Amino acid sequence: MVIFERVAIIGVGLIGGSLGLALCERKLAGEVIGIGRNQENLNKALEIKAVNKTTTFFQEGLIDVELVIMATPVETIIPILKEIQPFLRAGTIVTDVGSTKVGVVEKAEALLNQDEIFFIGGHPMAGSEKSGIESASSSLFKNALYLLTPTSQTNNLSLQKVKLMAESIGARVIEFSPDRHDFMVAAISHLPRMIATALVNTVAELPEGKQIFPLAAGGFCDTTRIAASNPLMWRDIFLTNREKILEMAKYFRQQLDIMEMMIAESDGEVILSYLEHVSHIRRSL
Amino acid sequence: MVIFERVAIIGVGLIGGSLGLALCERKLAGEVIGIGRNQENLNKALEIKAVNKTTTFFQEGLIDVELVIMATPVETIIPILKEIQPFLRAGTIVTDVGSTKVGVVEKAEALLNQDEIFFIGGHPMAGSEKSGIESASSSLFKNALYLLTPTSQTNNLSLQKVKLMAESIGARVIEFSPDRHDFMVAAISHLPRMIATALVNTVAELPEGKQIFPLAAGGFCDTTRIAASNPLMWRDIFLTNREKILEMAKYFRQQLDIMEMMIAESDGEVILSYLEHVSHIRRSL
Repeated sequence: MVIFERVAIIGVGLIGGSLGLALCERKLAGEVIGIGRNQENLNKALEIKAVNKTTTFFQEGLIDVELVIMATPVETIIPILKEIQPFLRAGTIVTDVGSTKVGVVEKAEALLNQDEIFFIGGHPMAGSEKSGIESASSSLFKNALYLLTPTSQTNNLSLQKVKLMAESIGARVIEFSPDRHDFMVAAISHLPRMIATALVNTVAELPEGKQIFPLAAGGFCDTTRIAASNPLMWRDIFLTNREKILEMAKYFRQQLDIMEMMIAESDGEVILSYLEHVSHIRRSL
Repeated sequence: MVIFERVAIIGVGLIGGSLGLALCERKLAGEVIGIGRNQENLNKALEIKAVNKTTTFFQEGLIDVELVIMATPVETIIPILKEIQPFLRAGTIVTDVGSTKVGVVEKAEALLNQDEIFFIGGHPMAGSEKSGIESASSSLFKNALYLLTPTSQTNNLSLQKVKLMAESIGARVIEFSPDRHDFMVAAISHLPRMIATALVNTVAELPEGKQIFPLAAGGFCDTTRIAASNPLMWRDIFLTNREKILEMAKYFRQQLDIMEMMIAESDGEVILSYLEHVSHIRRSL
C-alpha cells in the first residue's frame, strides 16, 4: 500500500537508512530519494536499496515530494529546514526523528505554518547503540515505540499519515505533547545515558581502573552499554533537553541519598525492603 | 580427573547447584553431597544431578569430606562455619562463593586456622540476575571470572586445588587480597547495582512514572537489568562492603557533578569530547 508517492529522506544514517529500507521493502512509498552531503554514503544507501535515487542538492531531491523525513542530528534540523523551505510546495508533510522535541517543533511550526507545510515531530525509539547506514535494517522499528508530538497547531490528516507510516513499518505509536515527550525521555533515556557515562568514567578515573575493567561481567556491561552510543547525537540531546535532564538528575540524587543513608546506617531490614520494592518494579517492566 | 574424593556443598541454589552440576558432569569430584535446610530444594538438586546425596544434617553430610563449598548468603557464612567446625577433620579445605571477602576471610581464618582447616575465599562472578536451583547450569562458569582471595595465612596447596577446580569448570581465576577484591567489586559491581536501583526508583517515584515505564526501550532495560537481581544477596553485599561502596558513590557523584556542570553550561565542545572519551573507553571493554 503506497502511503506517499514520493518521500525524501535527508540524512541516510542508521535511522534514515532504516526508514528508507522499511518504506521500500513494504512498498509504502512510490519512490524514496536519499539526500545527503556525502555521495559515498548515499551510494551505500542506494546499494542496499534504502533509497531509489540520491542527490546532494536539496532543490533536486525535493521536487514533488509529499513527505520529507529529516534524519539528521537534532541541532541541524532547524538550519536545514530554513534551507529547504523555498523548495517545499504547500501541503508537504515534514517530519523529523530527533530525540528531543520542544525546541524543534516550536521553531519548525513558527517557520513552516505560514506556507501550509505541515510539521509532525517524531521520535522513533530504536537503535541507540549503533550508528551509520552500515547498521541500517528494515526491521529496526519492529515493535519499537515511535513517539509523535502533535500540538494545537498540528494538521490532523498529516499526523494520521505519519502515524500510518510508522505503524506500517511495525512500530507502536504513542502521542505526547513536545513538552511531555521531553520530560518522559529525560527520565527513561537521557538520565540513564548520563548515569551510564558517569559510571564508566568513575571506574576509568580510579588509579586501579585498568585492573578493574577486565573484571567487568554482564552486570557492568549491561549497565553501561548505552554509554558507548553516538556521542554527536547525545551532545545534541544534552544541549536541547538541558533543563529536564538536570531536573531528573536532581531526582536521581535524592534516590542516591536514600540509598547511601540506608547503607551508612547498616539497616538490613530497610535495605532489603527497598531492594525488594525496586526489584519488583524492574521485573514487571 | 577427580580433584576431590568427597565434596560437600552447603546451600544448593543457583551457584551451589551450578557448581555441583559442573563438578558431577566433569567428574571432578568422586561424590558431591548437597546440604541444606529445605529437603524439597535438595530433591530438586538430586533430580538434576547437581549432587549425588543430600542431607539436612551437617554432621552427616560432612563425614570424610575434602572440600566444603559454602554457597549460602554472605551473612550466613561465619555462623554456619561455627556450627560445622566440630565436624571438619584437619586438612579439609573450605571455600565460599560470597560477593564480599574482607569480613568473611578474616573471621574464617581466625576461626579455622588453629584446627588446620584451610579457608580459601572465593567469588565466582556469574549468574547475578537469576537465582535458585531451577536456574542452575553446568556451564554457568564457562569463561566467567572466579576470584580467589588468598592472604599471608593461606595454605598454598589448598589454594592451588581450589584454583584447579575453578579452571576445570571453565572459569578464569584471578587472585586478589580480600581488601583489594572488595574495592574492585565495589567499583565494577556494587556501585552499578546501587545506581541501577536508584535509577529505577527515580522513575517509579515520578507522578508520571506509570506512563513513563512503558517507554522503556533497550537502553533503560539494559541499564537497570541488575536492579532486578536477588535482594537478599544484595542486602548482604551492601551491609558487608559498606565503606567501599560509599567511597565509590562519592567518586561517582564527582563524575555526575562534572556532567551536570557541562550540561548546565551548554558547552557543546566540552560535552562532545567527554562523551567521545567515555564512549571510546566503553567500546574497548
